[in-house]
Amino acid sequence: MNDAYARLAARFGRIGAIGEAAGILSWDASAMMPPGGGAARGEQLAALAGIRHDLLVAPELAEDLAAATAEGAWESANLRLMRHAHRRATALPTSLVEAIARANSACEKVWRIAKRDSDFAAVRPLLTEVVRLAREEAQAYGGVLGLAPYDALMDGFQPGVAAADVDPVFAAYETWLAEALPRAEAIQAARGPALPLPGPFPVAKQRELCAAMGATVGLDFAHARLDESLHPFCGGNPADIRITTFYDEANVAKALLGVLHETGHAMYERGLPEAFARQPVGEAAGMAAHESQSLIVEMQASRSDAFLRFLGGRLHEAFGGDAAPYQAVNLAKLWRRVERGFIRVDADEMTYPAHVILRFRLERAMIEGGLEVADLPGAWNEGLHRLLGITPPDDARGCLQDIHWHDGAFGYFPSYTLGAMAAAQLMAALRRAEPDLDAQLARGEMGPMMRWLGQAVHAQGARLGFQDLLRHATGKPLDPADFTAHLTARYLA
Amino acid sequence: MNDAYARLAARFGRIGAIGEAAGILSWDASAMMPPGGGAARGEQLAALAGIRHDLLVAPELAEDLAAATAEGAWESANLRLMRHAHRRATALPTSLVEAIARANSACEKVWRIAKRDSDFAAVRPLLTEVVRLAREEAQAYGGVLGLAPYDALMDGFQPGVAAADVDPVFAAYETWLAEALPRAEAIQAARGPALPLPGPFPVAKQRELCAAMGATVGLDFAHARLDESLHPFCGGNPADIRITTFYDEANVAKALLGVLHETGHAMYERGLPEAFARQPVGEAAGMAAHESQSLIVEMQASRSDAFLRFLGGRLHEAFGGDAAPYQAVNLAKLWRRVERGFIRVDADEMTYPAHVILRFRLERAMIEGGLEVADLPGAWNEGLHRLLGITPPDDARGCLQDIHWHDGAFGYFPSYTLGAMAAAQLMAALRRAEPDLDAQLARGEMGPMMRWLGQAVHAQGARLGFQDLLRHATGKPLDPADFTAHLTARYLA
Repeated sequence: MNDAYARLAARFGRIGAIGEAAGILSWDASAMMPPGGGAARGEQLAALAGIRHDLLVAPELAEDLAAATAEGAWESANLRLMRHAHRRATALPTSLVEAIARANSACEKVWRIAKRDSDFAAVRPLLTEVVRLAREEAQAYGGVLGLAPYDALMDGFQPGVAAADVDPVFAAYETWLAEALPRAEAIQAARGPALPLPGPFPVAKQRELCAAMGATVGLDFAHARLDESLHPFCGGNPADIRITTFYDEANVAKALLGVLHETGHAMYERGLPEAFARQPVGEAAGMAAHESQSLIVEMQASRSDAFLRFLGGRLHEAFGGDAAPYQAVNLAKLWRRVERGFIRVDADEMTYPAHVILRFRLERAMIEGGLEVADLPGAWNEGLHRLLGITPPDDARGCLQDIHWHDGAFGYFPSYTLGAMAAAQLMAALRRAEPDLDAQLARGEMGPMMRWLGQAVHAQGARLGFQDLLRHATGKPLDPADFTAHLTARYLA
Repeated sequence: MNDAYARLAARFGRIGAIGEAAGILSWDASAMMPPGGGAARGEQLAALAGIRHDLLVAPELAEDLAAATAEGAWESANLRLMRHAHRRATALPTSLVEAIARANSACEKVWRIAKRDSDFAAVRPLLTEVVRLAREEAQAYGGVLGLAPYDALMDGFQPGVAAADVDPVFAAYETWLAEALPRAEAIQAARGPALPLPGPFPVAKQRELCAAMGATVGLDFAHARLDESLHPFCGGNPADIRITTFYDEANVAKALLGVLHETGHAMYERGLPEAFARQPVGEAAGMAAHESQSLIVEMQASRSDAFLRFLGGRLHEAFGGDAAPYQAVNLAKLWRRVERGFIRVDADEMTYPAHVILRFRLERAMIEGGLEVADLPGAWNEGLHRLLGITPPDDARGCLQDIHWHDGAFGYFPSYTLGAMAAAQLMAALRRAEPDLDAQLARGEMGPMMRWLGQAVHAQGARLGFQDLLRHATGKPLDPADFTAHLTARYLA
C-alpha cells in the first residue's frame, strides 16, 4: 500500500460515514419522524447524496485512484471497489441524475394513486419517461463499465452478475416449476386444510416475542433496535442496526416471520469485517447476497420442521389457548402453503421465482428494447399466465403492484431469486458442516448456524463477488439444483 | 442580490442541511441509539463536522463572499452572518481544531470520574491543557473577529454581547441580591413549609401530561416528538423538533417543568422564518435569546400564580388523591422555593444568577489571565462564599459540578442569566401588550402569549442581534431592572 491508498482509505472512510448518516436518517424518516419533517429530511438526504457524489468524483480522488497500489486480498479488493464506485459516480452527468430524480419522484407519487385506482393509463406517461431515462442511465453506466445496458443496471444492485448468468437459471426453473407445482398442489390438497391460529395477538406480546426471536437468531440489542414502520426493513450500520416490522393483531405470522427475515439481514450487517468499517470492501457483497442471508434465516431455518417445533412452543407459551394449532405440522400447513397468486410479496417460496422471472424478462425488454411501456399490462398478464396459469383481474394486481419500476429501480428483481437460490445452496453446505443442525433448530439454537454463516459469508464483506462468495462458502458457484432439491424435499415428499 | 449571493444561498443551504442532519443524529445518539453504536456515530458526526468546515472555508465560497451584494434587511443580515461564519471557520488552523477536540474529549472522560470521586487533582492536568488550548482558540478567534479573547469565545454562543456589557449588569445584580436574598428567605420562612406532592407518579401518566402541556404551550406534534434521555434537551430542526425529558416516578415536577422549559426552546425553533430555512439568518439569534424563550415559558409563565392554578388542576386530575397539595399556593411554595445551594442546575431563579456570575468571572480570568487552573478550587469556594455566603463541602459540589469547562466550553455561562433577564423584559412588554395575560394563563391559554413571542422574537430569526432583538420586541436594549422587578414582585411582596 502506498500513500495514495492511505489517502483513499481516509476519503472513502468519510464517504462511508456519510452513507451511514444517511442510513440512520432514512430509518428515522420511516420509524420516528413526525409527518411534518418530510420536506426538511428530503433536503438533508439530498445534501448528503450530493456531497457523497462530489467526494466520489473529486479530481484528487481520481488522481489517487490512478496512483494507488495495494497488497493483500482485502486491500486489493478495496481498491478495485473504490475504482468501481468512482467509475459509477462519474458515469452520469449531473443533468441526467437530476432529471432521473425528478421523473422518479413524480412517477412514484402518481403510481400510488394509479395503483389504488388500478388505472395504468394515469401513470403510463410518467412511467414512459422513467423508462426513457433509465435507458439513458443504462447506456451511460454500460459505456463506462463495459457492460450491456441492462447488466449495467443489475450491477448497481448485485455487481458481477449479468443477465446471461440469470437467463438459463430462470429458464430451467420455469421448466421445473411447470411440472412440480401441480404435484405440490395435489400433495397439499391431500393433507387437508390447516387449523387457523386463534387470535387476537396483543401487540405488546408480539413485540416481546419478536425481540426474543431476534435474540434467538443472535441479534445483540447492544448494537440493534427493533421498531415499527409501515414497510419492514433493515437499516442502520453494522454497529447500530435498525430493524422494523409491522404488527397486526389478527396475524402474528406477519411480524414474527418478518422479524426473522430482517434479522437475517441484520446478522449479515453485524458480521461484516469491523477492520474495514465504512470502506467499500467492508460492505455486504450485494443485494442477492443480502437476500440469501434473510432467506436462509426466514425460509430455510425458521420454516423448517425442526424450528417450527420450537417456534410453535414459544407461540403457545406466549398466547395460550388450544395447543393443536401450534403444532409444527399445522404451522407448516399455514406458513408453507403453495399457492398460485397475483401478488409477489404474498407469494410462497415455490411460486415466488415465477414472479421474479416475469419481472426480469419484462424489465430487461423495457431497458434493452422490445417492450414499450404502453404494452406492459398485456405483456404482464400474458407472462404471468404462461408461468403460473393465472391472469390478474386488474392492473393493481398486475403490473402496478410493485413500486420498483415506478421509482426507477430496474435490475433489482433478480436479486430476490438469486438470493433464495443462494440460501438453499448455503443451507446444503451448512448441513454438511453441521450434521446436527435439525436437532439444534428444534431446540431453538441458531448459534452454530450463525457462526458458520458469519465465517463463510458475513466476515467476507465485499472481498468476493457473488459467485466467488458462493464458491468460498459452498465449493461451487451458484447451483440452482440445491434450491429445487430443497423445494422437492419440502413440498414434493 | 447578485449571482454570487445566489450561489452563497445554495452553499449555505447545503451547510444548513448538514447541520440539520447532525442535529437529528445527535438527538438519536441520546434518545434512541443502542449503546454499541457510539463509535460509529462519532465517525458520522466527525465526517459531517469536517465537511461543514470544508464547505465554510472553500476558496470559491470566499470569492463569492467578497463579490456578493444583498438588498433588503433579511438578505443583508444573511450575508453578514455568512461572512461571520466564514471568518470563524477560517480562524483556527486544522491542527488546533484537532488538538482541541482531543484534549476536550480526554478531559471530559476523566472529569466524569473526578466528579464522582470529588478529586480535582485527577482532572487538573487535563483541564490545564484544555484551558491552554482555549486561550489559543480565544486569541485566534479574537484576532480574526477583532475581539478581546474572552469576548471572542462568548461570540460563539451569543454573538454581539461582550464581557463589558455583562460585567456591570452582573455587578448590579450581586449588590441587589445581597440585600434581597435575606428578605426573600425571611418572607418564605414566615409562610411556612409546603405540603409534599403525594407520589408515586406513574411514568405513562407523566408522559401523557407532559405531551398535553407541550400542546398547551403550542407544540404541534405533526412537527415534533417528545422522547426520553438522561439529560433533557431540545434538538432537531424547525420542521422536526425533538424534545426529551427524564421521568422520575417520585418527582413529577422534574419532567413536567423540564418539558415546559424545552417546549419554550421548541416554539422558538418552530417559529423561525421558514423562508430562510437552513440559512444563517433563519437560525435563532443566539443562546441567550434561546434561553429567554425557554425561561419565559418555564419561569415567567408556567410558575406564575395564574398558570399554577391551571396546572394544579390538571395534576390533580391526572394523579388524584388529596387536592390540597395541588393548590397554586402550595405549588408556588414547592416550585418557587429560594435556597442558597451549591448546585447551579438545582438553583431557583433568584440565586441562579449568582452561580452564573461566579463562573463568568472565573472563566474570564482563566482565559484572559489572572487565574490558573491550579487555583480554581480556592477561587471557586471564595467566590461562592462572597456571592451566597456558603462554601461547598467538596469540589464535586464546587468547581467539578459542571461539564462545560471540562469539555472546552468557555463563554457559554453568561447566556443563562442574560436569557433569564431577557425573559423578564419580554414578559413585562408582553403584559403591556396583553393586559389580560393572567386570566389567559389561569385558563391554560398560552396562545396569545406565544403568538406575541412568535412575532416579536421567533419570526425574527437571526436578523437582529441580541440587543436589537430586545429593542425590537420591547423598545429597549437589555434592562435588568425588569428581572429584579419580577423577582421583587414574586419573592419580596
